Amino acid sequence: MEGDFVAVIPAGGSGTRLWPLSRSQEPKFLLDLLGTGKSLLVDTVERLAPLVGIEGIVVVTGEVHQGAVSAQLPELPARNLLIEPSPKNSAAAVGLAAHLLNDENPDLILGFFAADHVIGNEEAFRAIIGTAISAARGNSLVTIGITPNEPSSAYGYIKVGAGHDSISGVNAVLEFVEKPSFVDAEKFLESGDYVWNAGIFVGRASAIVHAFRDFAPELHQRLSRIMEIVRAGQDFREEWKSLPALAFDYVVAEPAAQAGRFLVVPGEFGWRDIGDFAALAGAQGSTVESDVLVLGDSAKVHPRDSTGIVIGASGRIITVLGMKDVVIVDTPDALLVTTKDHAQEVKQVVDLIRENGLSDVL
Amino acid sequence: MEGDFVAVIPAGGSGTRLWPLSRSQEPKFLLDLLGTGKSLLVDTVERLAPLVGIEGIVVVTGEVHQGAVSAQLPELPARNLLIEPSPKNSAAAVGLAAHLLNDENPDLILGFFAADHVIGNEEAFRAIIGTAISAARGNSLVTIGITPNEPSSAYGYIKVGAGHDSISGVNAVLEFVEKPSFVDAEKFLESGDYVWNAGIFVGRASAIVHAFRDFAPELHQRLSRIMEIVRAGQDFREEWKSLPALAFDYVVAEPAAQAGRFLVVPGEFGWRDIGDFAALAGAQGSTVESDVLVLGDSAKVHPRDSTGIVIGASGRIITVLGMKDVVIVDTPDALLVTTKDHAQEVKQVVDLIRENGLSDVL
Repeated sequence: MEGDFVAVIPAGGSGTRLWPLSRSQEPKFLLDLLGTGKSLLVDTVERLAPLVGIEGIVVVTGEVHQGAVSAQLPELPARNLLIEPSPKNSAAAVGLAAHLLNDENPDLILGFFAADHVIGNEEAFRAIIGTAISAARGNSLVTIGITPNEPSSAYGYIKVGAGHDSISGVNAVLEFVEKPSFVDAEKFLESGDYVWNAGIFVGRASAIVHAFRDFAPELHQRLSRIMEIVRAGQDFREEWKSLPALAFDYVVAEPAAQAGRFLVVPGEFGWRDIGDFAALAGAQGSTVESDVLVLGDSAKVHPRDSTGIVIGASGRIITVLGMKDVVIVDTPDALLVTTKDHAQEVKQVVDLIRENGLSDVL
Repeated sequence: MEGDFVAVIPAGGSGTRLWPLSRSQEPKFLLDLLGTGKSLLVDTVERLAPLVGIEGIVVVTGEVHQGAVSAQLPELPARNLLIEPSPKNSAAAVGLAAHLLNDENPDLILGFFAADHVIGNEEAFRAIIGTAISAARGNSLVTIGITPNEPSSAYGYIKVGAGHDSISGVNAVLEFVEKPSFVDAEKFLESGDYVWNAGIFVGRASAIVHAFRDFAPELHQRLSRIMEIVRAGQDFREEWKSLPALAFDYVVAEPAAQAGRFLVVPGEFGWRDIGDFAALAGAQGSTVESDVLVLGDSAKVHPRDSTGIVIGASGRIITVLGMKDVVIVDTPDALLVTTKDHAQEVKQVVDLIRENGLSDVL
């Protein structure tokens, strides 16, 4: 549909707050979190394919996930799978893809899409991406902002500025804001000036590379050196090893926004980042407060006088008695018992296990 | 010490409220619930041995547990192990032992002791049993009553009557009361007239057989028929199959008390019936409200901001986050998550699993 558009899917991150369902060896994007029969990665690819075709999709993933990603996406051309020798955070993944595609054609419009988000209304999603592509035909970078419906402290925010001169539905980005406190999130919601950062952005390959050059010059130089190695047909593994692990939002997007180079398309298309088990319960339509949502073999789960979510991934009998808003994740080698209120703190538990030298199970 | 005294230990009952730790194939009395390295049955035998020697101890158990009981009690003479072909509740177990021992010598004093109780002060316990034996030298049946220290609805109660004419520390039993409501338990505690039914009783073999004859005549007749088969050296399996399954307290003790044939020795010797996980936590000295008591491999249990008890019997990593008074029992094929407040209701969960056709795991 858009001949010069390429959809890039950085498939990294382990989804620590979904442990022990999500593991370093089998992270969130490889999981069928919603029980649809497809992983979040496959869902993401199938959502973008109507826009660009499978030929227009590039997946960036780690060496450890190469096999699993190829197996889940058998129709993805091999050359559309970019492999990071080791995880170096989002700036390196975005930068590598942008540099490689810029080398092919600097005028390509690139869209970057998280591999592990859920989108309910695909039509609305694709319409908004169309608007973002139009806006990106200038030299701006364009992000997508989700209209918030609750004061979530689980998402980053974008402060929305003035409307674009010529393209309706497009605004300036005044500021990217990291995950706020609940109190600040309430203020953001009330003001009406903020949208959620959906982790999607669109830009011309040249504009993205220029943003790296202008705002992350050291990283840009290292990536340029890697490109020389790639062009020479050599292995960039050694050079990659010493790359700094930085977040794209922090080192590129935020300063680019300060410099007035970022636009935002606010919208609503049933977007969800299933960041923790409370979000997973919500995404599964667990609105019945008086019941237990069971994922897995429900015949083996026996709740009584309880509410919450039970994920049975071990094949064992699970009985739950008199628990309110409980979260139980039962896997063959690890068990988590917590409540929805503590879902965000699962990361700390994972840190605790790592400190105790039990990383095998992470 | 007491030449005519025999200690009988009916080792039956599955301890349903301790599922999935306690199973029909490996019931409570076979488990090392307190982590002492010995099962409750072995503890019971070792507590009684100083009183009667191992020769004076008789264990009554089901055919399915014969192997496990013999393995745990290698010094118990084979003829001191009475086997019930199938479980027929306490009246049948007590009646079989009483009839068999009455056949040996009607003047023997028999004491019946639960196989799965915990007793903290063994000296005090043996002193009280000594008093009960003295009282039983008449034709009375003598039970032991525990002075309550809380309004427990988990135990049966005994209403204590007038003091014995000649033996100090011995009273009439006015009534056996089944597990009361919490409100009634509070009234019982306040009145000072009630003691807990510790499930222990002492009586002459002939007096016990006569109580069966007088208060449970049909069962008595069936047991007498079984004795004829035993005396003829034949197998009583067929006759046993059709025995009614009745509770001794209900069909014999209660009417015997009404008829004025039961005495009670009130006392205190650190008695506990670990009937559920709340009781187990209590018995383990889990008085620190701000902590999690771990039974099993504590290196694998990672609690955070939680209180309660975690029993790790599966070898898996267990993480607990933000749970109050939680009870987690993790075994290789079944998991229970509840709270101390719901500990008594575990029986209903087991019923639910049975109804759902998953008895394999019970």
